[in-house]
Amino acid sequence: MRKQKPASDSFVIMTELVLPNDTNTLNNLMGGRMMHLMDIAAAIAAQKHSNRIVVTASVDNVSFRDAIRLGNVVTLQAQVTRAFSSSMEVHIDVWAEDIPSGTKMKTNEAFFTFVAVDQSGRPIDVPEVLPETPEEIKLYEGALRRRQLRLVLAGRMKPTEAQELRALFELSEK
Amino acid sequence: MRKQKPASDSFVIMTELVLPNDTNTLNNLMGGRMMHLMDIAAAIAAQKHSNRIVVTASVDNVSFRDAIRLGNVVTLQAQVTRAFSSSMEVHIDVWAEDIPSGTKMKTNEAFFTFVAVDQSGRPIDVPEVLPETPEEIKLYEGALRRRQLRLVLAGRMKPTEAQELRALFELSEK
Amino acid sequence: MRKQKPASDSFVIMTELVLPNDTNTLNNLMGGRMMHLMDIAAAIAAQKHSNRIVVTASVDNVSFRDAIRLGNVVTLQAQVTRAFSSSMEVHIDVWAEDIPSGTKMKTNEAFFTFVAVDQSGRPIDVPEVLPETPEEIKLYEGALRRRQLRLVLAGRMKPTEAQELRALFELSEK
Amino acid sequence: MRKQKPASDSFVIMTELVLPNDTNTLNNLMGGRMMHLMDIAAAIAAQKHSNRIVVTASVDNVSFRDAIRLGNVVTLQAQVTRAFSSSMEVHIDVWAEDIPSGTKMKTNEAFFTFVAVDQSGRPIDVPEVLPETPEEIKLYEGALRRRQLRLVLAGRMKPTEAQELRALFELSEK
Amino acid sequence: MRKQKPASDSFVIMTELVLPNDTNTLNNLMGGRMMHLMDIAAAIAAQKHSNRIVVTASVDNVSFRDAIRLGNVVTLQAQVTRAFSSSMEVHIDVWAEDIPSGTKMKTNEAFFTFVAVDQSGRPIDVPEVLPETPEEIKLYEGALRRRQLRLVLAGRMKPTEAQELRALFELSEK
Amino acid sequence: MRKQKPASDSFVIMTELVLPNDTNTLNNLMGGRMMHLMDIAAAIAAQKHSNRIVVTASVDNVSFRDAIRLGNVVTLQAQVTRAFSSSMEVHIDVWAEDIPSGTKMKTNEAFFTFVAVDQSGRPIDVPEVLPETPEEIKLYEGALRRRQLRLVLAGRMKPTEAQELRALFELSEK
Repeated sequence: MRKQKPASDSFVIMTELVLPNDTNTLNNLMGGRMMHLMDIAAAIAAQKHSNRIVVTASVDNVSFRDAIRLGNVVTLQAQVTRAFSSSMEVHIDVWAEDIPSGTKMKTNEAFFTFVAVDQSGRPIDVPEVLPETPEEIKLYEGALRRRQLRLVLAGRMKPTEAQELRALFELSEK
Repeated sequence: MRKQKPASDSFVIMTELVLPNDTNTLNNLMGGRMMHLMDIAAAIAAQKHSNRIVVTASVDNVSFRDAIRLGNVVTLQAQVTRAFSSSMEVHIDVWAEDIPSGTKMKTNEAFFTFVAVDQSGRPIDVPEVLPETPEEIKLYEGALRRRQLRLVLAGRMKPTEAQELRALFELSEK
Repeated sequence: MRKQKPASDSFVIMTELVLPNDTNTLNNLMGGRMMHLMDIAAAIAAQKHSNRIVVTASVDNVSFRDAIRLGNVVTLQAQVTRAFSSSMEVHIDVWAEDIPSGTKMKTNEAFFTFVAVDQSGRPIDVPEVLPETPEEIKLYEGALRRRQLRLVLAGRMKPTEAQELRALFELSEK
Repeated sequence: MRKQKPASDSFVIMTELVLPNDTNTLNNLMGGRMMHLMDIAAAIAAQKHSNRIVVTASVDNVSFRDAIRLGNVVTLQAQVTRAFSSSMEVHIDVWAEDIPSGTKMKTNEAFFTFVAVDQSGRPIDVPEVLPETPEEIKLYEGALRRRQLRLVLAGRMKPTEAQELRALFELSEK
Repeated sequence: MRKQKPASDSFVIMTELVLPNDTNTLNNLMGGRMMHLMDIAAAIAAQKHSNRIVVTASVDNVSFRDAIRLGNVVTLQAQVTRAFSSSMEVHIDVWAEDIPSGTKMKTNEAFFTFVAVDQSGRPIDVPEVLPETPEEIKLYEGALRRRQLRLVLAGRMKPTEAQELRALFELSEK
Repeated sequence: MRKQKPASDSFVIMTELVLPNDTNTLNNLMGGRMMHLMDIAAAIAAQKHSNRIVVTASVDNVSFRDAIRLGNVVTLQAQVTRAFSSSMEVHIDVWAEDIPSGTKMKTNEAFFTFVAVDQSGRPIDVPEVLPETPEEIKLYEGALRRRQLRLVLAGRMKPTEAQELRALFELSEK
């Protein structure tokens, strides 16, 4: 049986100051720079869970609702939700804070998937994730459904075989 | 009636050399850096279609199959597929080339969505997209389905209302 | 009477991956880059305590004992210890972690001082710090002594007037 | 006889967004940053022609007439014009576009020379260039004259021996 | 009569450490990065002579003979040679030093031209240059000839009018 | 007896332009970025004295009195003051210059300590420093006292044993 590790062992907090080169001509953080930060935070979480070098395998749909401004403080929290052989899904929450004005808001939420590899870049198995809090259990359970969606979108699973996904879309209604 | 612009007016080619700071300890391009490049290429395509400042609204699921190495040349091609009021979907293809060894492969494909804004950051309508080639028409037609998936994933549309999406998943089975 | 804020309200965790451009020819993190990271983490802590723009006023003696390697994960924790009118002392602890080898060590500890300023750059008073835990109380009490050392080193206080400092050096020998 | 490759096989398009750190205090792209971009685009063209690692050998006179602004899109097109043993001349055209205002202008034109090297850095022969269009033929023919000017300026050819160059300067007048 | 300033008032020394992101896959400093450094050093010299904001107007032919390695120390010395109304020619010498092996060599020499501008970017006259040492006088006198070459190459002077240039090429035969 | 080298052999001048990404939201150079520059200048001085790879061992108290603005030119001068076995103390002076307004001021002064290491990172002895000018002799003599302060602050020397330091604080009063 594979070793189990608590989900919270992989918890990472990353804090960044938005600098001029991170922004567009409206002085707002560019979406691509935000994804760059998410990828680093999530990769560190996956490294902590697996104690391995990790490579990004996929990114789920990410939305950008709110403008994050030059000089804002961005806080990212990342934690592994579930592992499948050599791959790990990581959940990331992002907050932006304009400290002088005292406003703080949650701006993004995302799921990244990483694969643990050995020194020659070959996939290698990782411990199972042990979810403990209600939030961790909910993320653990949803991971299967999100994985099916990824496989369907990548053309590696037939939609009709994606039982969990059908539940997500509540499409098996009579 | 809104003005129409050929899809190909927004076509952008971007070429980048993979530098040390773009890579992880295996000397492979990090996924977050790739998304940063995709976002810039796609934003320029959306700017060209709309002649406006644009902000990233969302990124669809992106997969990373192949390792891109330090010193490789990365080529990104981005083009707007379809516009909805102030938002534009952009399709991006990515190739990586190891020139000394003569290998070139397609490594990624992605859809980013941007919103055109005025100087104060408010959304503003953009021209319609006129698809001309068979490939452009196919991307134009698929845009509706991908948009429904984004809305469902963002919790802003009920799955049962997503007619186009059901077609994607071939779930409207007998 | 000035408003009081718990020391822990300013607590900041920052996590960074050591990239190639951060390292010297031995592939070790350069000291100057580490101080750059410390300054950003500490400035965010001072911003959180004061809800103001802050500028670095001074850095106390910092030692670098251990080599931090390319690919290591650096974690910085910063928290305001005490405020004096418009200035704030911030304490920073730094850990470096080589995740694949499972080693983690505390590598640095430092005190930075910041001044809160208004939009035109003029110093402005900040809330008092309310230390709550034994560790916070110890740091709060030591702040006076460290402040005297800074003033003496900057030539702005005569050593013989530095009562607290004499205690530090245990020089009130009989 | 050396292998021939069409000039157009080396064609490269590079697109860049002008970011804050690329600009001076007037918010204009700095000349040095522009040459940095030209060097990367031209190096990729030379790599594509030679399928080798290449190093910059020289840059011909470059003029900077027009200010390129923060937020502008810079497009560089580079193509090898002619090869001499292990060296290749690359022609680069640069356009700057202010997309929201709809203005686009050609801002620079330059010739860079590269040498193909093996893994230990020794020069190695490259294929000949086969010019096909009238423009490519004109650039191919002018390459000899520009090469003589480079050699004269570097003190490696006597001006009186530079037959082609004399023609450029139309100095063989009666 | 225009104010005169000694050439040496504009003298600038710049020292840089070659970092990973400055290098190609052979671990050698890229030519474009070197030109970026030259442009900054030369711009500071032109600023010092004119006490104005300056913009790069042109770069003369630059050769790159020797490989500069990762970890090397690059030293640039820049000084204004002569002024023409609002434009200034700057001479730059570059040395590279591999300190552990004790080798130091001169690697490049270049001439950049800058134009002094006011806050709205319009050219504005600068003081004349007063050359004092034999080296400064030689550079001052050669500046006229190099300026003619720039004008001829830019198509803004007929070669037959370039009296000084003909001297350079020793073409005023018989 | 250890080889002696004149202090001035290690003299380094570094000049930097303050770019947008170096500044905070008030457009002032961030303290951490300044320390990053100081560390590079001082490391080059220590390399020049020892002809070795060097690593930062400690930084003494640094004060930041004056705001340095975007577009300012920063000049750092670094020179080794004294060596102790494998360690070297380096003195750094910093000036900031706003060239268009013609103002220049000394903004910082600091002492950094470096250790010379061999290729495997082990400390290795360096030449002694031969101070020649009155300023160099004064810095050489003060180095002992500053070293005692560093050792006391690092908890590696008892204050009562720090004879030189007591003199600094003039605490051996009656």
